[in-house]
Amino acid sequence: MALDYLSVGLDPKKSNLFIQTKISPLFELTAYYMNLVTVSRLERNPTVKAEIAQKNFETSLPVGFLCYPISQAADITAFDATVVPVGEDQAPMLEQTREIVRKFNDTYDNVLVEPEMLLPTNQMCRRLPGLDGKAKMSKTLNNCIYLSDAADVVAKKVMTMYTDPTHVKASDPGHVEGNTVFTYLDAFCSDIATVNELKANYQRGGLGDVKVKKFLIEVLDSILAPIRERRSVYAADVAEVWKILSEGSLKANLKAAQTLSRVKKAMKIDYC
Amino acid sequence: MALDYLSVGLDPKKSNLFIQTKISPLFELTAYYMNLVTVSRLERNPTVKAEIAQKNFETSLPVGFLCYPISQAADITAFDATVVPVGEDQAPMLEQTREIVRKFNDTYDNVLVEPEMLLPTNQMCRRLPGLDGKAKMSKTLNNCIYLSDAADVVAKKVMTMYTDPTHVKASDPGHVEGNTVFTYLDAFCSDIATVNELKANYQRGGLGDVKVKKFLIEVLDSILAPIRERRSVYAADVAEVWKILSEGSLKANLKAAQTLSRVKKAMKIDYC
Repeated sequence: MALDYLSVGLDPKKSNLFIQTKISPLFELTAYYMNLVTVSRLERNPTVKAEIAQKNFETSLPVGFLCYPISQAADITAFDATVVPVGEDQAPMLEQTREIVRKFNDTYDNVLVEPEMLLPTNQMCRRLPGLDGKAKMSKTLNNCIYLSDAADVVAKKVMTMYTDPTHVKASDPGHVEGNTVFTYLDAFCSDIATVNELKANYQRGGLGDVKVKKFLIEVLDSILAPIRERRSVYAADVAEVWKILSEGSLKANLKAAQTLSRVKKAMKIDYC
Repeated sequence: MALDYLSVGLDPKKSNLFIQTKISPLFELTAYYMNLVTVSRLERNPTVKAEIAQKNFETSLPVGFLCYPISQAADITAFDATVVPVGEDQAPMLEQTREIVRKFNDTYDNVLVEPEMLLPTNQMCRRLPGLDGKAKMSKTLNNCIYLSDAADVVAKKVMTMYTDPTHVKASDPGHVEGNTVFTYLDAFCSDIATVNELKANYQRGGLGDVKVKKFLIEVLDSILAPIRERRSVYAADVAEVWKILSEGSLKANLKAAQTLSRVKKAMKIDYC
């Protein structure tokens, strides 16, 4: 995960990277926020609902799973986040955080910052489907392209991508809506004219899936190659990555402890 | 609360007294245990069920309330408790802790101690009703005798105690079963012969409630007087009480941190 973050270009000098389980104030904040949220409110969260169904948790839902939007509220508020970049599917999570902040500030004292949501400007990126075109990418569903995938792995995965089941022969007219390959081109190809040309050709008939997929592979590779390169540098010096995480965790702990201290003071449980 | 503990005779040299919210490993243990318990398991807990009804939480149950048996499991296991003295109504709580311990040890590694339950030997003490004779004592129900109550307050409260509604005149035969005053005498009066004599007289008719209540006031006072005395000593030196709690919290933190460290190692999240 740390390699992913660093390889896409997050600069540890600007973005503090840390290990969540090393930040003990997060757990304590979560516990206090748990008193401000009802069980039925959590059960109404559409993202949690979808994931419960996806993980077959309907009959035996772990408490930790139901409560993770509360722990996310701790992750966000501990650092006085003003803006949180989220995918569209995570919007209900941020809404839950905002509710907790308002409830806490109303109940105790005005010490928590209410964060704003930042959605991607690229409409197509708001909810990128997995290779199967059905759900968002998920390790469990095995429908992901990983940032760490080698070029040949990405190529193989793109070749399995869901397109248009009615587009049997290259000469058949095809659909571009709901066609995952075109969804990805919309999201990742900056050469919009070429994408539009391909779309027209595909809809008219005469353009095979393999050709479009090969183009997508090129597009993805131009994005992933520099990421792979940065990754290989960090991967060759894992000790440095651990050091980044360790120093980042120290820093995160100090900041979260300050927030926790404000929270406990507001709750009047800041004993001796 | 600390004055209560000290006044009943808990010796801080033998019993470590601490403030729960100062022991941060408890919150982290709770978070990890939350992944080992299902929501429906918590909802089946008879003690939690009864308290949900009592607090009118049916429609809007705070997550923190539903989860408190899990936080109790942290309170118990953090200190490697082998035996936990509980009232009968707390038995389901301890059962939940024992389940979490077994689940954790099975899932990760054998690092948690499974505690045994210690119920009071005095049968009558297993579930002492409140003044109203209906539910156990509860601040919310305003049916308590407090350890800090002055002698005249205890006397007044005993005079309001629920007895036998069919026992209208002193000459009427009365019932001792379900009669709170006799339940208390069974629990607190060591002179069993006298209690049996009073019971016989009451059942026969000719013994008024006031007389029995006055006897109970004497019995309670003989127990509460030395408690009040110890309390007044500590209450006169509150700084000393805070010192006891502060030193106890330091000690509790060290012990709980050791347990947490074992837990994280077993879960393989003991990063750098």
